[in-house]
Amino acid sequence: MSTLILIRHGESTWNKENRFTGWHDVDLTELGAEQARDAGRKLRDAGIHPDLAFTSVLKRAIRTLWLALDEMDRMWLPTEKDWRLNERHYGGLTGLNKAETAEKHGDEQVKIWRRSYDVPPPALDHDDERVGRGDPKFAAIPDAELPLTESLKDTIARVMPYWFDAIAPALQSGRTVLISAHGNSLRGLIKHLEGISNDAIVGVEIPNGEPIVYTLDDSLRVVAKRTL
Amino acid sequence: MSTLILIRHGESTWNKENRFTGWHDVDLTELGAEQARDAGRKLRDAGIHPDLAFTSVLKRAIRTLWLALDEMDRMWLPTEKDWRLNERHYGGLTGLNKAETAEKHGDEQVKIWRRSYDVPPPALDHDDERVGRGDPKFAAIPDAELPLTESLKDTIARVMPYWFDAIAPALQSGRTVLISAHGNSLRGLIKHLEGISNDAIVGVEIPNGEPIVYTLDDSLRVVAKRTL
Repeated sequence: MSTLILIRHGESTWNKENRFTGWHDVDLTELGAEQARDAGRKLRDAGIHPDLAFTSVLKRAIRTLWLALDEMDRMWLPTEKDWRLNERHYGGLTGLNKAETAEKHGDEQVKIWRRSYDVPPPALDHDDERVGRGDPKFAAIPDAELPLTESLKDTIARVMPYWFDAIAPALQSGRTVLISAHGNSLRGLIKHLEGISNDAIVGVEIPNGEPIVYTLDDSLRVVAKRTL
Repeated sequence: MSTLILIRHGESTWNKENRFTGWHDVDLTELGAEQARDAGRKLRDAGIHPDLAFTSVLKRAIRTLWLALDEMDRMWLPTEKDWRLNERHYGGLTGLNKAETAEKHGDEQVKIWRRSYDVPPPALDHDDERVGRGDPKFAAIPDAELPLTESLKDTIARVMPYWFDAIAPALQSGRTVLISAHGNSLRGLIKHLEGISNDAIVGVEIPNGEPIVYTLDDSLRVVAKRTL
């Protein structure tokens, strides 16, 4: 048996401004920081003690982790940061206001981009600065894997190898694992763990900063789930 | 050629109270936090961009690293935390005020404990809570290696294997490495890099939060050194 804790980062500045964020590296708002600290306090008060953490290379997830670990007095926790846990890449929508985008392209089109399983938003040009080519935090990503846009399906396709290679072995060795990540990378993990369909996963909402705690058996099947 | 950056943590609450700290896990003061941010700004302004970080499992070194990385916009940096970079263990002096200890044991004795190379302070009892047995952040330490006290020589003897196993290979692969650690664990590294004698190393003072930047050749010999 092992324990897996998922936390979606606290509110970011672009959550607040209602903009498509994706791989753009915005920070938490003050509310978001408080949500992160609150997640740490909830875990501490529930007596849940992670001994290994994973996060993305985006600061809203890293800061959420740092603030939660600080509240748990576990700043020393071994932590791996990997781009495979990044948010879905929103391609040409990155940086746009969601309401303005709906006015321009219509509600239906925006709903398809946001809530279909396998339709990506318009791809960025190869050299668009929003691709992040040359950004040192993405330097470990092979050029061919650097996304120009992603559907949820694409996001899940790059999250799952990291689950199998890095996270699942840690859980199978009995460690309590904390993952601080993003709405869509976490959707991928939840879809896998709970066997949720392609159609249903797009409607699963994950609140900011509320720890989801799974108890898993030795084959990593879900035995229990609770939200703190 | 590679670059190695050493940072001693910012001022801690027990630095300020003039107490022997060692493995006790105190936090930074507000001045210490500002020293840490300043270290990050100095590195950023000097155009020195670490791509890998090492720190101890003690929060004054970890928070120094976090604050510096935040200023450098490099929160995503891969980071390894290891007890072998911890401060020297002060044994029975842990928690005592340095002035009171001098009154009780005499200036000469305290000078020997603080400034001799191979004389450790009095050892703690096996079950003294200051040993930290059962503390999860020390759980990775084999029981036989959990110190009851340490001389500077003892500290260096457990720092150097980590240098050779983890840090040196990263430098030899050409990476720019940042180490956020403590006065005595850093003395060990500086002694090795600069070939300083046992007698001389005890007098080497490392200011809080001032980055020391070494340029190393492929055999990790020092080509240049500067302090920011």
